[in-house]
Parts: sequence; structure tokens; C-alpha cells
Amino acid sequence: MFLTVFFLLVALCTQGGNGKEGEEAQRPGHVSVVIVGGTGDLAKKYLWQGFFQLYINQVSSGNTFSFYGGGQSPTEKATPVLFEILKTVSCSKDVSQERCALLKDQFLRLAQYRQLKSLEDYQDLAKHIEQQLQEEGMTEAGRLFYLSVPAFAYADIAEKINSSCRPKSGAWLRVVLEKPFGHDYRSAQVLASQLRSSLTEEEMYRIDHYLGKQVVSKILPFRIENKKLLDPIWNKHHIERVEIVLKETLDVKGRIAFYDQYGVIRDVLQNHLTEVMTLLTMRLPKNVSRSEEVLGNKLQILSSMLPLGKNQAVIGQYQTYKAEVQQELNKTKDHVSHTPTFAAVLAQIDDAQYEGMPILLISGKMLDERVGYARILFKNDIFCIQNHNNVHCKPKQIVFYFGHGSLQYPAILVSKNLFKPALVDSEWKEVTEHKDVNVFGLPISDFYIQTPMEQKEAYAELISHIFFGQKNSFISTENLLASWDLWTPLLSSLGSTFPRIYPGGADNADMLDIHLKGKDISYNNEVVIISTDQLGGTSTNGFQVMQGKFRSSEMVSAWAEQLVDKLAADIQEAAEAAIYEGGVFHLALSGGSTPLALFHRLADHHFTFPWRNTHVWMVDERCVLPTELESNFRSLHDHLLQHVRIPYYNIHPMPVHLNQRLCVEEDGGALMYEKQLIKLVNSSSFHFVLLGVGYDGHTASLFPGGKVDELGDSLVALTESPSKPHQRMSLTFNVINRARKVALLVMGKGKHELITQLSRVKDNPDKWPVTGVKPTNGNLVWYIDYDALLG
Amino acid sequence: MFLTVFFLLVALCTQGGNGKEGEEAQRPGHVSVVIVGGTGDLAKKYLWQGFFQLYINQVSSGNTFSFYGGGQSPTEKATPVLFEILKTVSCSKDVSQERCALLKDQFLRLAQYRQLKSLEDYQDLAKHIEQQLQEEGMTEAGRLFYLSVPAFAYADIAEKINSSCRPKSGAWLRVVLEKPFGHDYRSAQVLASQLRSSLTEEEMYRIDHYLGKQVVSKILPFRIENKKLLDPIWNKHHIERVEIVLKETLDVKGRIAFYDQYGVIRDVLQNHLTEVMTLLTMRLPKNVSRSEEVLGNKLQILSSMLPLGKNQAVIGQYQTYKAEVQQELNKTKDHVSHTPTFAAVLAQIDDAQYEGMPILLISGKMLDERVGYARILFKNDIFCIQNHNNVHCKPKQIVFYFGHGSLQYPAILVSKNLFKPALVDSEWKEVTEHKDVNVFGLPISDFYIQTPMEQKEAYAELISHIFFGQKNSFISTENLLASWDLWTPLLSSLGSTFPRIYPGGADNADMLDIHLKGKDISYNNEVVIISTDQLGGTSTNGFQVMQGKFRSSEMVSAWAEQLVDKLAADIQEAAEAAIYEGGVFHLALSGGSTPLALFHRLADHHFTFPWRNTHVWMVDERCVLPTELESNFRSLHDHLLQHVRIPYYNIHPMPVHLNQRLCVEEDGGALMYEKQLIKLVNSSSFHFVLLGVGYDGHTASLFPGGKVDELGDSLVALTESPSKPHQRMSLTFNVINRARKVALLVMGKGKHELITQLSRVKDNPDKWPVTGVKPTNGNLVWYIDYDALLG
Repeated sequence: MFLTVFFLLVALCTQGGNGKEGEEAQRPGHVSVVIVGGTGDLAKKYLWQGFFQLYINQVSSGNTFSFYGGGQSPTEKATPVLFEILKTVSCSKDVSQERCALLKDQFLRLAQYRQLKSLEDYQDLAKHIEQQLQEEGMTEAGRLFYLSVPAFAYADIAEKINSSCRPKSGAWLRVVLEKPFGHDYRSAQVLASQLRSSLTEEEMYRIDHYLGKQVVSKILPFRIENKKLLDPIWNKHHIERVEIVLKETLDVKGRIAFYDQYGVIRDVLQNHLTEVMTLLTMRLPKNVSRSEEVLGNKLQILSSMLPLGKNQAVIGQYQTYKAEVQQELNKTKDHVSHTPTFAAVLAQIDDAQYEGMPILLISGKMLDERVGYARILFKNDIFCIQNHNNVHCKPKQIVFYFGHGSLQYPAILVSKNLFKPALVDSEWKEVTEHKDVNVFGLPISDFYIQTPMEQKEAYAELISHIFFGQKNSFISTENLLASWDLWTPLLSSLGSTFPRIYPGGADNADMLDIHLKGKDISYNNEVVIISTDQLGGTSTNGFQVMQGKFRSSEMVSAWAEQLVDKLAADIQEAAEAAIYEGGVFHLALSGGSTPLALFHRLADHHFTFPWRNTHVWMVDERCVLPTELESNFRSLHDHLLQHVRIPYYNIHPMPVHLNQRLCVEEDGGALMYEKQLIKLVNSSSFHFVLLGVGYDGHTASLFPGGKVDELGDSLVALTESPSKPHQRMSLTFNVINRARKVALLVMGKGKHELITQLSRVKDNPDKWPVTGVKPTNGNLVWYIDYDALLG
Repeated sequence: MFLTVFFLLVALCTQGGNGKEGEEAQRPGHVSVVIVGGTGDLAKKYLWQGFFQLYINQVSSGNTFSFYGGGQSPTEKATPVLFEILKTVSCSKDVSQERCALLKDQFLRLAQYRQLKSLEDYQDLAKHIEQQLQEEGMTEAGRLFYLSVPAFAYADIAEKINSSCRPKSGAWLRVVLEKPFGHDYRSAQVLASQLRSSLTEEEMYRIDHYLGKQVVSKILPFRIENKKLLDPIWNKHHIERVEIVLKETLDVKGRIAFYDQYGVIRDVLQNHLTEVMTLLTMRLPKNVSRSEEVLGNKLQILSSMLPLGKNQAVIGQYQTYKAEVQQELNKTKDHVSHTPTFAAVLAQIDDAQYEGMPILLISGKMLDERVGYARILFKNDIFCIQNHNNVHCKPKQIVFYFGHGSLQYPAILVSKNLFKPALVDSEWKEVTEHKDVNVFGLPISDFYIQTPMEQKEAYAELISHIFFGQKNSFISTENLLASWDLWTPLLSSLGSTFPRIYPGGADNADMLDIHLKGKDISYNNEVVIISTDQLGGTSTNGFQVMQGKFRSSEMVSAWAEQLVDKLAADIQEAAEAAIYEGGVFHLALSGGSTPLALFHRLADHHFTFPWRNTHVWMVDERCVLPTELESNFRSLHDHLLQHVRIPYYNIHPMPVHLNQRLCVEEDGGALMYEKQLIKLVNSSSFHFVLLGVGYDGHTASLFPGGKVDELGDSLVALTESPSKPHQRMSLTFNVINRARKVALLVMGKGKHELITQLSRVKDNPDKWPVTGVKPTNGNLVWYIDYDALLG
């Protein structure tokens, strides 16, 4: 019957371009590798071995190499040291002993030590390289500088490289940097701009060796390979929580001079664990080898993180740390270090996919075991009617096991009751023999396990990536700054916090256990504070909310947090009473920064707030587009409305933007709002109006000298502010004073002077507009925090 | 310095009026109790014992009593039967044997059997009561009729009571009814209206004996008593799930005639488990003995439930049930019953407090154990750094244990790592001796446990409540209908579903285990269907999404569900592509009922949809207030926008309501929308436009004969619909045909005729407006489900 209709069976899903798009085109030729700090610890332990590996792999590729170990010492002194190191390099198992000996011999012959101290040293190096190229008639492919030196030397060395060691056009320059990249946002930015004056973004390779770990580097491929199975469950609805953990048993003895300036957050969380977090949560790139996309998607996640403050972290310090500091830094017995050696941080991503999903980042020294993993624990979505011991009743999880711990090898584990994952790489294998080992309390036979056939060092991997110009495994400037932007406020807020002291090892018992409370985190057990001196400041716990009188009206006072809690509770109470009485609650809210804490409190803690029956009105608005950050509505929207389930048509932004222009009298926006208000709000009497007060005594957008009396009977008016943006729309006293309840919220030490004055002046709305707030039949309550009240 | 400021320390929280407000004032006097069906099973087992209990408690209260057992049998035949029953009543332990014998003797003397069949019987009873009152000079307190008879007799008996047995004014009449109260919404409504013609709401006491169970009746007091501790955790953020479970080991042999008409959902879930659910989730009443408030809050929860459909339930039937049906109902061997003897239902409450929190209601016959409980399992909010075996690392839960099971007594259990609850009642005690018993895999020493000092029968409790007129433990008509309103659609949708057959007892193994998938539920294990005949209809699994051509454009076809999945995926793909390209996605959506499934799919499954960068526009709107149910925007809002995180200012409802009036040409709403569109949407070219098509061939709100060509260059126009509401606002073809992609969604058998015609007709937008959809540079795709395509 459907002659015109043709059927064509087609595959629904075309395979996304997940495969490697091939490595960046390389011009074959001569490569000069320079390790600045070539006889240092890192070079000795990992770097030379990594470059030897590269040499073995590339020796038949058409490329030729020279290797330079650079350093501050004179050549004659350092050369034997370098060669002692070079002699220790080894081949992987698949290279015959004979061939290995030959390659090692060649490698040693291609290497030399050079003193790299002064600019001349660098110029000499460049001359040397060019001479060699010329002599041997080689084309140059590129120059690779690996800066294995303290970070303070980076800028200077980069400048020398820039001014004297750049290869001729056509060949590449790559400069590799090791963390630390600054110790906060500011210092990272300074370092970045110093480097950028010498090097392009393209030329810089900031290493985080975690990204070279075999399991970490397979997180994205695993997610892509199993996309179909993961897509429906990789979200807040299915994931109970994510744990990214690096536990160590060692202390930091001998490294205190460095460590005490950084601590565990800067040392591990800001970089390694943050990188793992982004890999786990970032939007999957269409092409995993397209660095721009990978780094862009990482940046997107970093920018979507909820801010980290002191309620999102707990910190600890192992007991003997104090003595180690005193000894290594030559400090007296009174010296106290606040540097944490343990930290647990609760991160959350503020987007639809992950909103509210806890991500725990945890690391510490002197814990009970050495282990690193990222674990995605899924919500238990099985209800076992009869037999609770079935495998399928057990928790479901995916674990990226970086190594050590009970398993002792790197692996990706997937609960058997979840799904059977595809093998992530042809160089990986499935583990089918199960020793009697438990992981997270479950026998490993409960998991599908895959592991690399051969364990490879992270540095060797990354060195190969540098050689191939694969920037996706490195930290871009933008991403580095985004990470510091996340961590710096936390670090600042922890500045004066004294870490919990833990004995170390098994003795820690449950001292460091963590309790998640919504967006906050705390230690699960209270312990007695060792000395109150260490607390700094006074304890606030003793204080209660106080009630009294201010300017003949009621006053509630407390520390800021309790004050906001009380105000939020009072608003909810008013809402419930109004709805009980008339089915609807009309709430008018002020703009500005003071109410933000209140908005957060309402959004995060008042789960039973009757938003469905609440209408939200604006007390005042700035004449800007509602999407601009300055807009009161935008702030209200982002901090409150976006997070609660309030119907669209219960929201009443002020119409400051009509006919494509802002607050023009003839457009009648104020009148329009007034009409809307008269129509919906019984007797134009709001149930609750929240006001603030400015330093100049203004309230709503009614400013001193604003001739408040001349606004006549209007309920809404256009007004002028002395500060930008000048134009405002505001409720007038006519409607404010008709409200059932008006709250005047005043917080912060900066308002103390004002409060002192207000406590003395007579009513004079023209000079002190806030004194015009005098509800006719309603109730005015001042909410003043102790900072504002007591100074 | 603050001379004018006085401090007053006040308690922050005033105690809410949680105490019992005292029982309803009772006029002391004579009470006549009539059990209609007084020699039946229920009366024999529970009712007479309950009334004896009442008699004991009230004998010194100033009230006097007469007890009548009523029934169809002649008096002389039934009297000895009744007295056999009455002789079995017993006293509680605190009554001395001597006193008990005396009371029992009195009780028997106050009781008599009366035939209650005809109207005259009831008139005689009334006469008898009045005569007795007069003879003994007693004031009448009230008359209590307990209808322990099949439900079909209720209306008739109620009428007889009404017409002949009403007490004189001043005394009360109470008529007690036992379930079933109908078998679906319609029949419950019929029964309710029949009863209401004879009795007032005040006079009816619908019993659900679960509400008399000691633990169930303490759910609200427990929540109130521990309010401060529960408030922060009694919500979706902290509760992992709620399980309300009644497992039985018995079959229904001998009761098939009744049971086969009802099944487990009507028998247990619609009433008992639903009542428990409301008690667990309802808003706490200010006063637990204020029936109006309690019942009102229950109603509120029932009205907030997400609809239950066949994706929210799994059903089963024990293996021998079929044979029992054939035998007891005299059916042939081919007879198949679809009646479930097991059901698991996933309920969810659509409000801010509980949204997304799974509530499992589960009951079945022939399971492995007899047990009833409601369990609130909290999310694991502890991370144990070292020792995972600590008590505080274990799951936290609150269990209302109704009885039986491993514990063998009714109790309230609270995990010790949660909090120590206040004792819920002075007649309860804490259990401190712990036998070696496990509950949910945990030793009971992990819990704080409280239990009633004395176990009491539910019926005795409820009979006392009836006597005191406490209606809060009974089912109001309104609440009954709300419950049926919830369950009826599920029952209908399950009508033709064949239940999974289970062997019964331990053999069930994991056959009945449940898998929760977001808002859906399914059996965890697939089993082979015993016979395909039992499925009814054809299996849809084999079909794929097909692509082809329709009216020279692309066509996608599939069964409705797959079609919607595909369309949702296509929209997301378009969104991602548009945002990748230009940072923003402009989507225009149609009204009507067809897209609702799409809206749900997008809201519930597309967690990664980039709403933050999506602007939602309307294709058309009816000229009604946006809050009215008819409004396209209201529908879009309730089904999609309310459930996703889209910024307020990305939502663009059509301005059909300006200057307090609807769609008046001069108000310029259409032009306003056009301007907005031109300003925000690049070249007025939407990225995606979703259209439907009406039976008359209209699309958007462009109707046949609507002179579509005469709309000139306008992008938005006011139009006229042949059906109400006539006035519409609509995008015109000018803007629709500028879109990058247009989807035409057509679903349902009802559209088959139309699709047949459309496959033949030439373009004629005046007659068939939908044929005017011809994107100039974009792409038109028809999404037609098999029902519409194949009829």
C-alpha cells in the first residue's frame, strides 16, 4: 500500500572517530636532547632511561640523536657522574642482550655533559649543535630541553634557550617543565607569563607524570571503548561517588625544606588527582589524540567545578612532622607548621550530568598502605528479594588501579555484575587467574580485570609523547591556571587551620575517616584539640543567636552563618504560614552580595521549602541585561532559582529591558511591574520582603537625596544610583511598607560604622533611606551579624 | 557603645505542638456496638476480642455498652455460634484472673445475636436500642456499626442504617468498613458515592488494619520525636532508597474466588503499603491527633506521586496458582490467570524533598520468609580511610519492623552509627539484650532497638480509636480515591501482562530480584518465556529503526518508543554540533500531546544535553494564560523545562498575554516575539524545529484554509484554529523553512489515515498546511511510528 515508501535498513549508530588519528607528522632528521639538571635525582632515576627507550624505538626510524646532560658543575667534574648514570640504563625484555649492549654503547657515544650556567654556555651549546649538523650534513628535526631543575630557574633558562638555542625555522623546539608550577594562582600566573615571554604555548610541555601512568592514560580510551555501556550510567543518577586516592606509607623526612612550603594539596591534589578527576568526568573528545579538544574539554570541567572552601576539606599532619620540621629547618621547639601531610577534599561539578555527585580527592603520607586508585562506585540499583549473597546484589564499581596496594599491579577492574568491558588496548590482557586477594572488601574474582602485558614507566611514556608532539598528555597554561583557580581559594581559607595530628600507620585507626554532609565534608570523629592556642581566634561554638531591639524594631543577631540559618528558617516559616492561610507566598528579594549566603542556604538546606507555591519578586534591579553578571536577577537566578524547583511563571524579574532598550520611562516597565504586582499580590502586600542596606544608608534602590517622597503613590519606580550602573528600578516605600514582614539583613565588619550611626539617627528617609522602612501593619526585623553589630 | 541595644537570650526553637492534643470530647452515656457479620471469620478472630478490650478499658469510665452480633442467619441458629466465639475472649496480663472472669461474664450478658437481613430487622434493632435506653433511663452516647461483610453489601446496609438506625441528635453514629473499597478508581468512586448518600464522611471509618499495627502507628510519632535529627537527612540527598516490604510464605489456596479478582497489588500494595509510604513521606503535621491535618498531608503526598505505569512494576505468580485457580473456579486446563501473587513497584514522589528517591513497594505470596518492614536506607556518607570494618563504615538505616522475620517481634531499629533515637512511647522499651540474630546482614547489636512492652492486636487498637472518634487512623474518601487514582493506571496497563512464574519458597532463588533503572524497574534476570502465546501480540524486540523516504524527504520509522529515543538522540546531536560551531543551540518546540514522550525522554535520559547553551522557543501557543493546563508552554514547562537545568533567560514563551488580555492584535505580541527571535537567532534560522501534524493536516498553528500565504513576511502571526481555543500564535513558514533541521513527528494509529493521504497528495499548503514545510537550505525529516505508518 505504500508504493512510494522505501525501506532501508541502516545501522543506527555510526562509529564515532575514536581511533588514534595518527601521530603528528614529524620531519625526520636530527634531534638534540638536552636534560638541564642531567645528573640530578629525577634524571638518574627516570629520564635517561626514558630517553634511552626513545632512542631504541627511534633508532631505525630515520632520526638521529645527540644527548646532552647539562648542569651547573664544570664539565670535567660532572662528566664521569653522568656516565655512571648512563651506564645503568637497560632495555626492555624484547630486546636481545647482544642488541642491547650495542644500543647502549651507541647511546653512550651520542651523549655528553655540558656545563649550562651562563648565557655563553647556552650559546656554545647552540653553536656545537649547528656545527655538528653542518659537519655531518644532517637536517635538523628539533631540540628538546628537559628542565629538571628547581622551578625558580625556569624563567631564566627559558630566556637563555629563547635567545640563543632556537633551531632554524622548520625544526621544532620543545621545553619540558616539571612541577611545581607555582604555589597558587598568582605565582602560577607570574611564572606562566615569564615563560610565555620566551616560549610559545606550543613549545611548552608541562609534565604531570600521573598522565604517563599506564592506567591513567587509559581512562579516556576505556570510557570511549565502553561508551555505549557507560553513557546511561555515567552520571549523578547512577554514580554514588567517585574516590580518587593516593595513600602513602612514607614520611617526608629529608625533603622538608621543599615539602613544608607545599604540603599535600599542592604536592598531589592540585595536579595528579585533579588530572585524574578531569579524565574521569570530562566530556569525551571526538578524537582522543586531538590535543586541542582534549585540553578544551578538560578546561570545561575545571571551569564547572563548585568552588572549594574550608568546608570542602579536612587536613591532617603526621605526628612526627613537627619535630622533622624543627630539625631540618632549624626551628625552635615552639615552631608550629600548618602544612598538611594528609588531605581529603570533596569536589563537585556544577552541571546537569554530575551535579551533587561527590568526588573525593584524598592523599596522605604515613598512612597504613601504599596504594593509588580512582574508584567509581555505583548506586546499588538491585533489590534482592531472597538471597542477599548473590554476586549481583553486591556493590558495582569500576576501579582504575594505578598500582601497589593489595593488587600490586596496575589494572582496570569492572564488577562482574556491571558489564564485561572491551579490552582497552591490544597491549593489555585480561587477568583470569585470581590469587586470593581482596580489593575493597571483595574477592578479585568478582571483577573483570585487565592489565598491561608489560609494565612501563610513566616517564618513558611521556618522553615518547613529547617526541611525537602529543600535547594531550601535558598541562596547558590555561588548564594549569584553571586548576589553581580552583585550589587557591581553598589553600587560602585553610591558611590558619591547624591540621589534625595523626600518629601514622595502623595507629591512625579511624582518626582520619571522613563524613560527607551534602556539599560539606568533615572528620567523622571529633577529637580533643591538642592546644587551644593552635586554633587561633576564639571559638564561636559558645555563641547563640540573640534577639533584641534596634531602632525600636526587633533585632536578631548572631555570627554570620547562624544569622543566615535563622533568616532562612524564618523565611520558610513565613512561607508555610502564608501557604497554609492562602495557598501562596509572595517573596520579594534584594540584589547585592549580602543575600548570596542566604540564597545558598535556601537552595542547599531547605529541601521542604514550598517553592511550588512561592512567587519570587525583585526588590530592585539594575538597568542592565538580565544575562549580565551585574544584574540582580542574574545573581538571584544563578545562586538560587536555578537550584530549586520553582515554576517559571512564579518568577518575576523586573522588566528593565523593553523594546530592545534599558529602562526608558516611556516603555513603562515600572508601571508594568506595578500592574503585575497589583494583580497577583493580595492588597499589594508581600508576605516577606528582604532588604539590605548600603554604606550610604540606601535600601532597595532608594538612594540618599533621591526625593523618595516625590515618587507619589507608585509602587515601582525608576531611580538613580550615585554608583554605576546609575539607572535602577526599585520597589518604593509605598509597597515595601505594606508588607507583612520586612527583614533588613546587614552583615560584615564594613557595615559596623553604618550600624553605629543608624543606632543614633532619627527617621530621615531623604538622608538615610533605610529609616523609611516602617511597615504599616507588618513587622520589621533587623538581622545584623556580630561583625556589623560589634565591629 | 551600644547603649540602645539590649540583648535577650532566647531559645531558638520553640517546641512544636507535637503532643497529643487529647482525645475528642466524648459525651459519656450508652454505646451500642453492632457487628454486622458478627459470627464471621474476622469477628471471630479479632473483632470481639477488640471490643472486649474496649469494654475492659471503658467499664469504669461512665459509659455503658450493649453488643450485638448481627447476621443473615436466624437468631436461634446463630446465637449459640456467637456465644461460642464470645467465650474465647481473653484479658491482657495486667488484669487479674478473678476480675477477668467477672468482666467476661458481664460482657457476655451485654451481648446478643440479632438477625439483620431486612429493613425491618434494622428497624427492630433501633427500636430495641431505644427501648432499652428508655427503660434504663440512659443517655445515649452513640452507635457503632462494624460491617464485617462482603463489600457488595455495604451500600444496602448503610442505607438501612441511615433510614432506621440513626440515634437521636447529640449521639454519634459510626459505621466501620473493611476493605476492599472497590477494585479500581471507578468502582471505588461508585461505592463512595453510594455510601455518601447514606452516611456523612464524619460517620464513616474505613479500616486499614496496618494503621493499627504498633510499629506502623508509631511512624509519625517517631518522625516527630526525632525531628531535629531527621530533618537534615530525611530527603533525596541522604536517603538512598525506601523499601516497604511484606513477604509471605503462604499461598492463597481456598481464597482463590476472592483473590483471583484482586491480586497482590489490590490486596496489599494499594492499601497497606501505600499507607506506610504516606506515613514515611508525608509532611509532619503540627498536631498528630488533628485528623484533618494528618489526612490532608497524606493526600498531598498521594497527589505528588509520579504516575505508575507498567515500567514501574514487575509482577509474578507462583507456579501452582494456575492449578489452584482451575480447581477452585472450575476452569479448564487452558485457563490462564494474569492475577499477580507477587509485585514490586517503584514509586517516586515528584517534589523537591524526595524527587528521584526510589520507594520500593514489594509484596508476594510463597516467598522464602514471612516478614514485614519499612526500611529507610541512607546513602553511605562515610569514607573510611583505613579500617573498613568499623561500625561507622557500615550502612546506616532506620527500619520499622512490623513483625515476624528474623527478629520475630515488632520494633523500630536505628543504626548505631546514625543516632540514638528518643523512646517513641512510654509503653515501649529499649532492647538491650541481643540474641544472635541478623537483620539485613547486620548483627542486631549494630542497632538501637525499641519495641512495645506488650504486643497489641491492630484491631483492638483501631477499635479504641473508633470509640474515641480519632479519624487519623482511618482512610478518608478523598485519600482512598487518591490512592486508586495512583494505582488504577498501573493496574490497567498490567492488564494483559503475563506475570513471571516462580516456583515458591527458597526455590525462587534470584528469580524475583529487581533492577532499578532510574524511574523504571525490571526483573534483574531475563528468563525464557514459557510460551509465546502468553505474551499476546508480537514481540517488538526484533524490529530496528528504519530509514526511508516520505514525500521525497527523509523518513525515520520505528515503534513509538524507539522512534522517540532516536529523535531525542538526533536533537542532542544537533545541539552538540550547533554549540560546537557557534556556542548556542536554538530549538523550537511544538505543543500538543505527541511530543510529551520526547520531553520525558530528554528530561530523564539525556543527562549530558547541553541545556545551558540551549534556547527553547515555541512553535505555537494557544491564547490562554501560561498557567492554564491547555497552554503549550505549561505543558512544555511541566514535562521538560521544570526537570532540566536551563537558564531562565534561555526560555522564550510566546507573549500571548499582554496588558492583562489575550492575543489582542494591537498589543503586538507576535511582533514582539518576532523581534526577539530576529535579535537572538542568527538569520532567524533555528537549528532545530520540532513540528507535529494534526488530523486535518495542520502543523504549528497553521490551519487548512488559514490563508497561510497572506501572512506576508512576518515570522510570527496570530492565527485561528477551527477548534477551541480558537486564537493561536504561531511561527509562520517564513521562519520554519529557514531552519537548519525540521522534524515532523507523527505517532499513533489515529494518524494512519492521514499519513496514507499525505503520501499521495501534492503540495497544497492551503488545504494541507503541513505540505508547506519545505526548508530552503535545511533538512526535513519525518519521524513516523509504525502505528501511524502501517496502521
